[in-house]
Amino acid sequence: MPTALGYAAHTSKAPLTPFQFERREPGPNDVQIEIQYCGVCHSDLHQVRDEWNNGIFPMVPGHEIVGRVTRTGARVTGFKPGDLAGVGCMVDSCRSCPSCGEGLEQYCEKGFVGTYNSRHKDGAPTYGGYANNIVVDETFALRISPKLDLAAVAPLLCAGITTYSPLRHWNVSNGRKVGIVGLGGLGHMGVKFARSFGAHVVLFTTSPGKAEDARRLGAHEVVISTSRDEMKRHARSFDFILDTVAAPHDLNAYVSLLKRQGTLTLVGMPDKDPVLKAGNLIFQRRQIAGSLIGGIKETQDMLDYCAAHSIVSDIELIPMQKINEAYERMLKSDVKYRFVIDMASLR
Amino acid sequence: MPTALGYAAHTSKAPLTPFQFERREPGPNDVQIEIQYCGVCHSDLHQVRDEWNNGIFPMVPGHEIVGRVTRTGARVTGFKPGDLAGVGCMVDSCRSCPSCGEGLEQYCEKGFVGTYNSRHKDGAPTYGGYANNIVVDETFALRISPKLDLAAVAPLLCAGITTYSPLRHWNVSNGRKVGIVGLGGLGHMGVKFARSFGAHVVLFTTSPGKAEDARRLGAHEVVISTSRDEMKRHARSFDFILDTVAAPHDLNAYVSLLKRQGTLTLVGMPDKDPVLKAGNLIFQRRQIAGSLIGGIKETQDMLDYCAAHSIVSDIELIPMQKINEAYERMLKSDVKYRFVIDMASLR
Repeated sequence: MPTALGYAAHTSKAPLTPFQFERREPGPNDVQIEIQYCGVCHSDLHQVRDEWNNGIFPMVPGHEIVGRVTRTGARVTGFKPGDLAGVGCMVDSCRSCPSCGEGLEQYCEKGFVGTYNSRHKDGAPTYGGYANNIVVDETFALRISPKLDLAAVAPLLCAGITTYSPLRHWNVSNGRKVGIVGLGGLGHMGVKFARSFGAHVVLFTTSPGKAEDARRLGAHEVVISTSRDEMKRHARSFDFILDTVAAPHDLNAYVSLLKRQGTLTLVGMPDKDPVLKAGNLIFQRRQIAGSLIGGIKETQDMLDYCAAHSIVSDIELIPMQKINEAYERMLKSDVKYRFVIDMASLR
Repeated sequence: MPTALGYAAHTSKAPLTPFQFERREPGPNDVQIEIQYCGVCHSDLHQVRDEWNNGIFPMVPGHEIVGRVTRTGARVTGFKPGDLAGVGCMVDSCRSCPSCGEGLEQYCEKGFVGTYNSRHKDGAPTYGGYANNIVVDETFALRISPKLDLAAVAPLLCAGITTYSPLRHWNVSNGRKVGIVGLGGLGHMGVKFARSFGAHVVLFTTSPGKAEDARRLGAHEVVISTSRDEMKRHARSFDFILDTVAAPHDLNAYVSLLKRQGTLTLVGMPDKDPVLKAGNLIFQRRQIAGSLIGGIKETQDMLDYCAAHSIVSDIELIPMQKINEAYERMLKSDVKYRFVIDMASLR
């Protein structure tokens, strides 16, 4: 069985430290990937600190994985050794429910198998991408174009697809006015995609200091969401708003900015349950929705789209040894816009 | 100017008492209607007691109006004296915004003119249907088929269209599993329409005593919403749920019953702002929406549909003099399922 060297949290209170563990022996449908880069998602931090009360320890986080295929099982057809490959948030699903049948494994009715802090069908815990290799069924491996900066591709596997999928699902395109709430790992990808899809893009932030960067990333306008006047000027004007913020905030202020039949979609899991002003929905037939990452087919479409349109994440590359420090900086939003771990640092 | 005799509340604390007032002289586009019946909507009670803090007194409530045309202006083309006619929740709108242009006057961007407790464009207060006549622009008058029981048609003008419109908008049809929350004035119409549209209809109620009636009205199944087990059995199975309940209740329990991409639509204005479990939306790409009555064209379509399919409201006819008592009974949900005032009692 392949030995992996990674970083793990041994308890919810412990920092991440070096951890050696075994991957499964690649089966006929598996590819083994030498991980070159892994993005750092805010949910990694939630989970290693067991803030969602579902932690399996020791935990090796990481679900924004890119690297190079080193071995392939006998039945693998989509990859050969030497190919670039990626792994996102999922490594398996039931494969038989209607959602799986439609390529929407993220909504698998039996629950998908997460890349880490989850359990394989045989009950074994899954370990993620903060490690030098991974073994994965090729069905859940993504093809990666060599045209893009590989380190900057890693965050596409979660932050990318999490914003791409709802923007596609709610038909964000030419002529639409679209809001992106929050300029973090998710938000900065939302701005890039919405702009690329032809929309008029407005970035909402509480930080005036982010305005210039938001415009550089593709926003046509920046609204400081704490300014009632600025918000009011956009009342009833948006076709769609993508809310990427997990910190407590007033959803109703954004609902008021939607046109009739507009949709506010949540992709950040709020730390606190928001309160809804029902009249705000009723009086303009508006909607509040949620969206979760994206299916494997759509993730591949997104990666292909990014290769064709030269879209990657803005990243700060760190060595594995700096992960605990990176978490502290993430808590202060001190990252533009995604930390990515360089696995060369493990060697 | 036509003199009208009706019932009005003179303050938010006062019972309704007889009130004589003047309607405008019918203009070239107006029809004058002798009101025969007017339904009693729960919002009448909210407004006469000024619970929405927007009361204009004296207030003549009533927006479920049916009667017979007695006069028509020179330019009126759709009605002639002797025709049946109805008036719903609206008597005017800006007529120039995109919503009005699409026949969705209920979402008029400048706000529609309500049939009562509102102001005409000249600033004069509007008086509703608890009266023996009304003058209305023919654009906002509805044609009524003589085929149906006229008294039982009255509630279609608000309770009917309020449920018909969202069931149509969210494509409730053959093969869909649809929930209706609450069996009151709105809910009982929701059950009738959803059944008529071919859906599998499940009525949610807290009152086991309503089960038999719900089935008679068209529900295939009745779920007692206080039973966790009964609710659980329907998890993830609904395409659409129409929530007609204004009393505080947990929306999330219903969101959990939706399939992936299902929608919960609110038509009752909750007395208290509900709390949202965002994960419930995110993990199955579900939506919470709102819907407000319906446009004039859709209201006419609904009335025509009702005539073709023999659908009316279940009503209890009362004389005008019993309105204050009827309000008290409404507060106890002691009505099956809509009070309708017989204006013959005013003569």
